[in-house]
Amino acid sequence: MKSYDVIIIGGGPAAIVTGITIRKFFTEKSVLMVKEEADGLVPCGIPYVFHLLGNDAEKNRMGPKPFVDLGGEVLVNTVVRVDKEKKEVTMESGEQFMYDKLVFATGSTPVVPNFIPGYDLQNVYYVKKSFQYIQKLAEKVSRLKNIIIVGGGFIGAEVAEQLAGAKANVTLIESEPLCFSKAFSPQLSAIATEALKDSGVNVLTSTMVKEITGENGSVRQVLTNDGKKIDADAVIFSIGYRANTKLAEETGLELNRYGDIHVDNYGRTTVKDISACGDCAQAFGFLTGRSDVIKLASTATAEARTLGHNIFGVRIKKCIFGTLGVFSTEINGVAMAAAGANEKNAAEAGVNLVTATFSSPDRHPGSLPGVANLTVKLYASPVDGSILGGEAWGSKSAGEIINIISMAIQKSITVFELISFQVGTHPLLTASPVVNPIIRAAEELVHQISYT
Amino acid sequence: MKSYDVIIIGGGPAAIVTGITIRKFFTEKSVLMVKEEADGLVPCGIPYVFHLLGNDAEKNRMGPKPFVDLGGEVLVNTVVRVDKEKKEVTMESGEQFMYDKLVFATGSTPVVPNFIPGYDLQNVYYVKKSFQYIQKLAEKVSRLKNIIIVGGGFIGAEVAEQLAGAKANVTLIESEPLCFSKAFSPQLSAIATEALKDSGVNVLTSTMVKEITGENGSVRQVLTNDGKKIDADAVIFSIGYRANTKLAEETGLELNRYGDIHVDNYGRTTVKDISACGDCAQAFGFLTGRSDVIKLASTATAEARTLGHNIFGVRIKKCIFGTLGVFSTEINGVAMAAAGANEKNAAEAGVNLVTATFSSPDRHPGSLPGVANLTVKLYASPVDGSILGGEAWGSKSAGEIINIISMAIQKSITVFELISFQVGTHPLLTASPVVNPIIRAAEELVHQISYT
Repeated sequence: MKSYDVIIIGGGPAAIVTGITIRKFFTEKSVLMVKEEADGLVPCGIPYVFHLLGNDAEKNRMGPKPFVDLGGEVLVNTVVRVDKEKKEVTMESGEQFMYDKLVFATGSTPVVPNFIPGYDLQNVYYVKKSFQYIQKLAEKVSRLKNIIIVGGGFIGAEVAEQLAGAKANVTLIESEPLCFSKAFSPQLSAIATEALKDSGVNVLTSTMVKEITGENGSVRQVLTNDGKKIDADAVIFSIGYRANTKLAEETGLELNRYGDIHVDNYGRTTVKDISACGDCAQAFGFLTGRSDVIKLASTATAEARTLGHNIFGVRIKKCIFGTLGVFSTEINGVAMAAAGANEKNAAEAGVNLVTATFSSPDRHPGSLPGVANLTVKLYASPVDGSILGGEAWGSKSAGEIINIISMAIQKSITVFELISFQVGTHPLLTASPVVNPIIRAAEELVHQISYT
Repeated sequence: MKSYDVIIIGGGPAAIVTGITIRKFFTEKSVLMVKEEADGLVPCGIPYVFHLLGNDAEKNRMGPKPFVDLGGEVLVNTVVRVDKEKKEVTMESGEQFMYDKLVFATGSTPVVPNFIPGYDLQNVYYVKKSFQYIQKLAEKVSRLKNIIIVGGGFIGAEVAEQLAGAKANVTLIESEPLCFSKAFSPQLSAIATEALKDSGVNVLTSTMVKEITGENGSVRQVLTNDGKKIDADAVIFSIGYRANTKLAEETGLELNRYGDIHVDNYGRTTVKDISACGDCAQAFGFLTGRSDVIKLASTATAEARTLGHNIFGVRIKKCIFGTLGVFSTEINGVAMAAAGANEKNAAEAGVNLVTATFSSPDRHPGSLPGVANLTVKLYASPVDGSILGGEAWGSKSAGEIINIISMAIQKSITVFELISFQVGTHPLLTASPVVNPIIRAAEELVHQISYT
């Protein structure tokens, strides 16, 4: 029986980055990646297959090439059994391999609302992280007129925006009063929901799907809890993802209360020599340290790097621990991003904070062509002034501005330090140093904390 | 005699931000700003007056309005004498005021090369930070054909690029083998020099001006040290700036070896109740702590904020000290930025470092329209892995990416932490998390430091 130093189960970003990290840093170790589909895709790129990438899933392909280039091996198959005592895995094909270390990077699957009558009709779809599935779905919906998206989180809203851009008649149904409300503050959720409406999507908030009715087994209408009947040629559900943990459970790995694989700071499960990272593994909320549900490609890759370095024994103790949800999107040309605490999630977690907002042109002078407004909102501890969260929106710069804020949160930088933060500025690239919105928002917080 | 709690001498970004900070945080204090010209300008915006802003200095105006809005007073006049014993200032007009605290924010003036024959001919210009002067200069050179810029630092190169864009026949003369070499690594200096050539500027490096010849008192030709004779309708010198310290010297303030006003970490001079910030004041190099020459609007405003908060006694001890030069520019559509150490300035300062570079598309998948390449180069301590410097170029994102690196330098973040740095990513806004260039360059450095 063939033996590998490491076998990775999965083929998404967590699996690929784990593989890359191990092959790069431990070149003598043999690594096998077992993935179910030969083709992979960029998970965050899925919405753009529907319009911006010209309805061509090929342009959103992401394979394990960087891992293979570093000497990793890939097998397209399904692991059906793990024998944790003998340290053997068995494939659907019957093949068996031995491992020294095993990594679960089995990802997550869309939640299927089997409590809604009609959920199993034809033309009811999900945003599956499968190349083949998305390729077929994009091809299919491009020929349909009335499309209903259920769920106003990032994926649902982005798919809706793209399909509206492709001239479909798109209705989005969201149960909360605003879209994006799991990630954004109420203020930014309202701005984002408006941007989504401006993109041409018919947005129904505070609305739930009661039933999907069909004709000849295929979708015909969606009935809402408030009595609306909306014609539908297709329904796409985007109401969250659940960890793929069937094999983990059968293997005897402990799951947490959300059904994610229980791991420590280095990705180690409760079973010796088995680790897990990415969507299938437990996340610890950065603010509180309790287990939380944060399933992002960015956090998955951070976990994968930490795991990869430490899989043969903890080598890098100085990792940044805790999962900080950092979210960004662009809807109808408006970039929006958030990290860490806001009024809503902090209240839920019992965290106190103060907040301040500052806006300025993203170039200077503001008379330059192409200038957009950039707004930064910061959240800090009312006692020690450490940055607990932040948001940025307007200009495309928000995409990297949020990562400055993200670093400040991860390193417990305070507003007292931020007022003397030295930044590079240039007329064609950034705001003026006089009105740098991070520094000026921090200054507002210094005022609230210490001068009142 | 009228008395103010604070009198600020100067009207540039350092003066304005000092005034804003004091008026915002100490609302009971009276603040007078004495400036020589009623009109101000955005210093970094000067090059864009010559083309992108349509030859209209009005569009680059920056006045003290935000300070006045907060209740500050402005007087257009020149301070000719300071009596530090009586704590009085005397204006050119004869008016006198008393102060409790006095701030020098007198800025800097272009270096005039009086050792070059012909330097005083008509149509020999400087990039003065004066609204009136720049307005006239822009108007004047717009009607000329052959323009020679001397000095290939940021201002000189940006002015050259803009004038070339405005269809002038522009030659830039730089004494070093590459332009931008005071701020950028040799690698990035070479890229920037190429971008400048691509913008249509005739760039002569390793070249010095020997003489300027004239006709009827006006510029005719520039003679170089290697025998070239170049026709010139105007010559613009941009060979550095010197602190304006005549009044400071007369007042008895101590200057350092570069001629800048000696100050402590909070901007306090050697004379009680007199502070200084911005281009006229001493900078401490971030890496070594020794006095250094760094004259940027961004560092000036950071100094001004630190000074403003602490002028009535040190209130915020937790400021980030040391002046970190963070530079950015865009030449011919290529954004380029640098912070802290590179191979060249580190060797000069006797600082050891290791370096690594990583490039990736600034959006993902790379097949999206409008994708540009983003390269990040990091420099770290070979012993503890702390980030000492960095560069970013290619994509416009470089303008904010350098500020992530800048924060890492200022907070002594290590490459071991950066590999698990959690970032927000989005297809339309950032690189893929799998190939985030900051994280991947840090990973290369971890490899160099610990795995070899």
